[in-house]
Amino acid sequence: MKTHIEELGIFGGPPLFTSPRPIGQLYAPEVDDYLATLKEAFDAHHLTNDGPIVRKLERKLAQFHGTAHCVAVANAGLGITMLMQLFANGRRGEVIMPAFSFRGLPHFAQWAGQLPRFCDVDRTKHTLDANAVDSAISEQTTSILAVCNFNDPGDIEALCSVARYHNVPIFLDSVYAVGSTYQGRILGSFANAEVFSLHATKLLNGFEGGYITTDDDDLAKKIRWQRNFAPPGSCPQMADTEHVIGLNTNLNEMHAAMAFLTIDKLKSIVARNYARYKAYQTGLAFVDGLTLVPYAEGERMNHQLVVMEVESDWPLTRDQTVALLRAEGAAITAYYSPPLHLSEHCPTEMEVPRLPIAEELAEKFVQLPVGELTKVEDIRRICQFLFFIGECGPAVAERLNQRGKL
Amino acid sequence: MKTHIEELGIFGGPPLFTSPRPIGQLYAPEVDDYLATLKEAFDAHHLTNDGPIVRKLERKLAQFHGTAHCVAVANAGLGITMLMQLFANGRRGEVIMPAFSFRGLPHFAQWAGQLPRFCDVDRTKHTLDANAVDSAISEQTTSILAVCNFNDPGDIEALCSVARYHNVPIFLDSVYAVGSTYQGRILGSFANAEVFSLHATKLLNGFEGGYITTDDDDLAKKIRWQRNFAPPGSCPQMADTEHVIGLNTNLNEMHAAMAFLTIDKLKSIVARNYARYKAYQTGLAFVDGLTLVPYAEGERMNHQLVVMEVESDWPLTRDQTVALLRAEGAAITAYYSPPLHLSEHCPTEMEVPRLPIAEELAEKFVQLPVGELTKVEDIRRICQFLFFIGECGPAVAERLNQRGKL
Repeated sequence: MKTHIEELGIFGGPPLFTSPRPIGQLYAPEVDDYLATLKEAFDAHHLTNDGPIVRKLERKLAQFHGTAHCVAVANAGLGITMLMQLFANGRRGEVIMPAFSFRGLPHFAQWAGQLPRFCDVDRTKHTLDANAVDSAISEQTTSILAVCNFNDPGDIEALCSVARYHNVPIFLDSVYAVGSTYQGRILGSFANAEVFSLHATKLLNGFEGGYITTDDDDLAKKIRWQRNFAPPGSCPQMADTEHVIGLNTNLNEMHAAMAFLTIDKLKSIVARNYARYKAYQTGLAFVDGLTLVPYAEGERMNHQLVVMEVESDWPLTRDQTVALLRAEGAAITAYYSPPLHLSEHCPTEMEVPRLPIAEELAEKFVQLPVGELTKVEDIRRICQFLFFIGECGPAVAERLNQRGKL
Repeated sequence: MKTHIEELGIFGGPPLFTSPRPIGQLYAPEVDDYLATLKEAFDAHHLTNDGPIVRKLERKLAQFHGTAHCVAVANAGLGITMLMQLFANGRRGEVIMPAFSFRGLPHFAQWAGQLPRFCDVDRTKHTLDANAVDSAISEQTTSILAVCNFNDPGDIEALCSVARYHNVPIFLDSVYAVGSTYQGRILGSFANAEVFSLHATKLLNGFEGGYITTDDDDLAKKIRWQRNFAPPGSCPQMADTEHVIGLNTNLNEMHAAMAFLTIDKLKSIVARNYARYKAYQTGLAFVDGLTLVPYAEGERMNHQLVVMEVESDWPLTRDQTVALLRAEGAAITAYYSPPLHLSEHCPTEMEVPRLPIAEELAEKFVQLPVGELTKVEDIRRICQFLFFIGECGPAVAERLNQRGKL
């Protein structure tokens, strides 16, 4: 417990944590179970390119999400890029996406030969605003990418209805929503397709990897063809295959084995996440100026992230707060900041829009340590630390300004 | 030993091999060594995103190839795509490439926002013709992709000199040339960069994966930034970074561990390959109409593939020969066929050129079983089989025509 500002890590005091407390999930199955599964793959001499464990994983995930198809891919970012390319169907146009989201999205659109078209978000849910999408749709629009955030899947019904009205494909980045629900139904079979992640920092850990779920038989065939170089001569029998551009985004057996072993643990992983969320809630109850972003009511959520809002009565800026926590060994970041239209990834040829809600939200949030490597006791210490810097906030701010830091 | 054409697999006879004999390398290290290495990665809780085994692998490969930098990527195809994107530097133009090569290349160019510009190849080496490149270069050219084939690295000196004269970046697809030499020096540090594969079917097996070697410090920094989403705010300090488009092409620890363990075995893997090559040479010595594609003289080559030429005095067509061998359990294919400008991957908006040498070569070759799962004894049986069908060739051809096969 720190009692004087000289003891803060940022001013040279010993940090709260000597090894970093990360913001990722980092669950891993028992190493022996994993190695045994891998040995099977070794013995079968089939290590990549649609192997038996990948197929088993795809079947299990399709069942889990209640979809007709699941296609595993090398990672979620490549999955999103592939869908943008498929939905554009040979056209150069625009992909509509929220301005308050993952920094990689604008570049994915560019890989797919598209420009991003940024839309503002809902102030409470932080997800794509259906009215903004309706106004943004034009002849140029090739698809809509809606993002299900960790805290709220967004207004999927309204978004799909806008997309249907304009006859534009819509798909969901559901990377943070494995196992979460929308209107009580598990995500996976909404819109034209959904994309999930198997990255080590996500709920379902395959070291790395991702997958796409869809009920559209033709789309599933195209994705399977596309992910393995779209080999000439084995083109699926259907329309519009001439615009499918292939690449190698196969998932390997070693990733699939890891993810496969994790599916059955999801319930206990979510319970662990929930305990951490409650610990933050308890710990921050008496800290003025800091509150947690609430989870959507009436839905089952996976509590994968804990994000804190820095309110106007907190004595330090959001970026000062991030810097103070990082100096204590909390490997945290600002959440979705800057907004995409103001980031370096906004293509230079675009006119930069004004999107006031995204701009405001991007100044507010801090993503806190969670997951396997953050214990409930760590969270208690983080909250005590925040209580302390809240109490002596003006002095800390003055000291930071004197030092020319932030 | 088959003695009658009714015994051929294609006519319903029992196949020579009950499990497929593949054309890939498929070497794997001792499973226990591998699992022990992986356990270290598990215990270190660092499974992806530039982990310690990836770094160790990169250092070892840079040393192996004698280059300043090695950057590991998710696979060679993505590595090639990334370089096409970087060298284009924000322009939409053309990537010059050989018409006789891997079917995936035209699509890689399109992912990078470029059109492929196909050039003809040298009749003996089968590699990009420097004069054809010189004629094809225009204002549109953003880079030249030269391919080092399994049998010959090509005329790298002439190609680099053409590229230098026109001030166009040139890079090498050296996927089939791990450990091979050009003018006595190991490949890896020629041209602006080279791309290698860690796919299970290649010499250096990482299950999947690839890497880029270069002596260019700035290029290496850009690739590292690009492969991890090119995160805004951590842009390397140099010119032209605004046109770098990021994605996720990180290599994971599990792939790196596998490849790392294989490097020290390369000498024995190449010796195994050479023994298989010699077995084919001996076995085909008395088969008229079938010869092996020779390896470049005076260079060290890795003998990764064995490719057979079907000559005009062989009684069957190349495609009939492929079908007959496949029906015996040899999981073989025609080699680089069709040529890229005549494949479904030639973009529809392009005028299709005439490239006579590529067109002629694409009709000639068969890639034969090699690698870990093909024994020297298997090769003896394949050669006996080819001798037999050569002897009764006209009868086999008539029978295939009667059946309406091929």
